Parts: sequence; structure tokens; C-alpha cells
Amino acid sequence: MPKIYCLADVCMVPIGTGSASVSDFVTLVEKKIRESSLKSTLHSAGTTIEGPWDDVFKLLGEIHENAHENGYVRIQSSMRVGTRTDKHQTAQDKVDTVLKKLGNTD
Amino acid sequence: MPKIYCLADVCMVPIGTGSASVSDFVTLVEKKIRESSLKSTLHSAGTTIEGPWDDVFKLLGEIHENAHENGYVRIQSSMRVGTRTDKHQTAQDKVDTVLKKLGNTD
Amino acid sequence: MPKIYCLADVCMVPIGTGSASVSDFVTLVEKKIRESSLKSTLHSAGTTIEGPWDDVFKLLGEIHENAHENGYVRIQSSMRVGTRTDKHQTAQDKVDTVLKKLGNTD
Amino acid sequence: MPKIYCLADVCMVPIGTGSASVSDFVTLVEKKIRESSLKSTLHSAGTTIEGPWDDVFKLLGEIHENAHENGYVRIQSSMRVGTRTDKHQTAQDKVDTVLKKLGNTD
Repeated sequence: MPKIYCLADVCMVPIGTGSASVSDFVTLVEKKIRESSLKSTLHSAGTTIEGPWDDVFKLLGEIHENAHENGYVRIQSSMRVGTRTDKHQTAQDKVDTVLKKLGNTD
Repeated sequence: MPKIYCLADVCMVPIGTGSASVSDFVTLVEKKIRESSLKSTLHSAGTTIEGPWDDVFKLLGEIHENAHENGYVRIQSSMRVGTRTDKHQTAQDKVDTVLKKLGNTD
Repeated sequence: MPKIYCLADVCMVPIGTGSASVSDFVTLVEKKIRESSLKSTLHSAGTTIEGPWDDVFKLLGEIHENAHENGYVRIQSSMRVGTRTDKHQTAQDKVDTVLKKLGNTD
Repeated sequence: MPKIYCLADVCMVPIGTGSASVSDFVTLVEKKIRESSLKSTLHSAGTTIEGPWDDVFKLLGEIHENAHENGYVRIQSSMRVGTRTDKHQTAQDKVDTVLKKLGNTD
């Protein structure tokens, strides 16, 4: 499996639950992410996970499988995944760079 | 134009810039978002904007146009947009609900 | 509202429907798209819509509103939206260019 | 690695290429997809790949790595990934079901 470092931002939604609330589902997902060894950041539209490609997508697949085992019949994930070879950059680095530039332009 | 309240999480990337760095572009985008009257939250994989549908997508279109005027030839946006009619919910509400449930399950 | 021509690929899912099947929902959405004057292409993971920014996002907002009126309480859309100023390009153009290059490399 | 069958719709873009045209890049990606044993469908906003989770994401990671080896410094992928346990459904099945329902409502 590919080992390249990636930043993967993921929004998972369950389909067919009978309730418009998804917070129980998101809590189940977020617990699995936090039990892993990968660094992650929760925000209102998803969670960003950082790490080697194989670890990140193994985790995401296991979360789909785990959610199915917990009774969720259908799951749809929206992902934004970035890789680059010019430098190592964390999720926090990306935010810090923009905030610094915003400050400089004020 | 539709007035329904929405949460729109947007990640814009420029194509054809000759540089793998996108922070100047993201800073340009983020400035336009913050100059608007809409509430927004920056994170490492995008920005979440809250407000009436017409205001949100007018702003996003103007940002595309503004970036083109600033020399960016091609722009690709990834968006996650949610609407619901059962209750009003802000971006912060969504995070707070999950964090509270995570706390209760520890 | 911005008039810039865009290609918007959209995948809408209903949340809280009680059934894992979404084809009734997608059919409702697709009918509204086809009733509009905008060119569109259905595929298994969404529909690509082409036209001026204001027309495209007015349509998409109306589809959200129409679906709510039809009893769908919560809707989540994933969108990929592209604009460019170097040339006019339709969705079909994009596919044709790649297929031609694939043929040339065989 | 998880073996669950999934449908993954992927749109990859290169960042920092110096040209607004991405068809050479998409052709490189599409060739790798077609060299694999996985079923796929090209459309104007991406490619849908079907198969076991581990095979699909191994392929996608290898494509990122291969593109980097071919000189693309930064790559951003937008993915829509679905899994379900109630029935097996191909990409073509999804389109056929909607087209049939559209026909019935005309």
C-alpha cells in the first residue's frame, strides 16, 4: 500500500437512518478516529486526518465497516485528499500560513 | 434566488499557477469572505460559510470572478452544502453537539 | 449575481429518510434539472450542470427547496465547481480531449 | 485492510503546473485506472471506480505517487465514496434505476 503522507478531510453521512440528526453517527466516527494513532482535527463540516496514505484509508475503511456493524446500512463519504512532494506540511501549518498572511494584509 | 439558510463548506484551489503553494490564493479568498457580512470559519481544508443560499452563492461566485481578475486563470471549488428544515443549526452548534456526546461516552 | 460560466458537478443525498434507497430522491432532483434550460449530464455519482453561475446556483437552491417541500427534511450536496477564463469548454469537450489523448497513447 | 465493496468517484487536479490545462494529467491518471483490474467509468467531472475498499484506495494512492514521480508536485483529490450493506449495486445499476424512474414519471 502507498505510504505517501496525506491530508484527508472527510465528511461522512449515514443514509436511511430515519432521523435528520447525524450527531450520534458523527460521534461514533469521531471516537474511532481519536482511538487511532493519527492526528486529526474536527470541524463543523468534517474531520481532517493526517498520516501515511495506507494508515489513513485503512482507518476510513474500518470506520465504514464499524458503522455498518453498528446498524448503519448506507454511508456516503465526501473526501478532500492532498499530497505534495515539495515540503512536509501539517493541517495546522496550512491555517497558520494563511492567518499570518491575512494579518500582514490588514 | 432561493433564500433557504445553508451551511457551505468550500475548498478552492487555483490551477495553472506555476507554484505548488496556494496560500496567497487562499488569503485572497479568505479576505473576500471576511469582508462579507456572512459568518465563516476557516479550517485547514476549507472555510465554512453560513447564511441564506443566495448570499452564500453570490459571494462564492464573486470570489471566483475576483480571483480571475487577479490573474488566476482556472479555479476549482469543492463544496459541501447542507440545508435542513427541522431546526436552525449553526456550524458551531454542530461541533458543540458532537463534543458534548464525545464527553459523555468517555 | 455572478454571470461567469461554470461547470458544476453535484451529488445530492437526503438524510433521515428511513430507507437506504435514494433513487426516488435522485429522480425528483433529476426531473427538476431536466425541466431547466441548462445542459446537464447524469452519471452514477452525480449530475454535471453547465451554465452561468447565477442560473446554476439558483437552480440548485430551488432543488433543495423543492425537495424540502416534498418532505425531505435534510439534504447534503457535494459539489465540484470549475471556472476558467482562458477558453470556453463544455463537459463533453473535457471527456473528448481525454479520450483522444488516451487513444493517442495506446 | 478493509475489503468492503465501495463506489468511489474521484476528481484529481494537479496544483502548480504552470498551465490551466489538466488533460495530460487526467490522461495519465485515467491510464493507470484502466491498467488496473477495477471497473471504472470516466465522466467530465471525474472517474467512478468500483471494487473492494483496499483495492480502490491502493490504486488511488499509487496514482498519486505515480503522478508525483512524473513531475506533478502537488495533487488534490475530491472523492465521493459510498458503501452499503443492504444490497450489491454497481455504478451502472444506479444510473439505470434513475433513468427507469424518470421514464415512468414522464
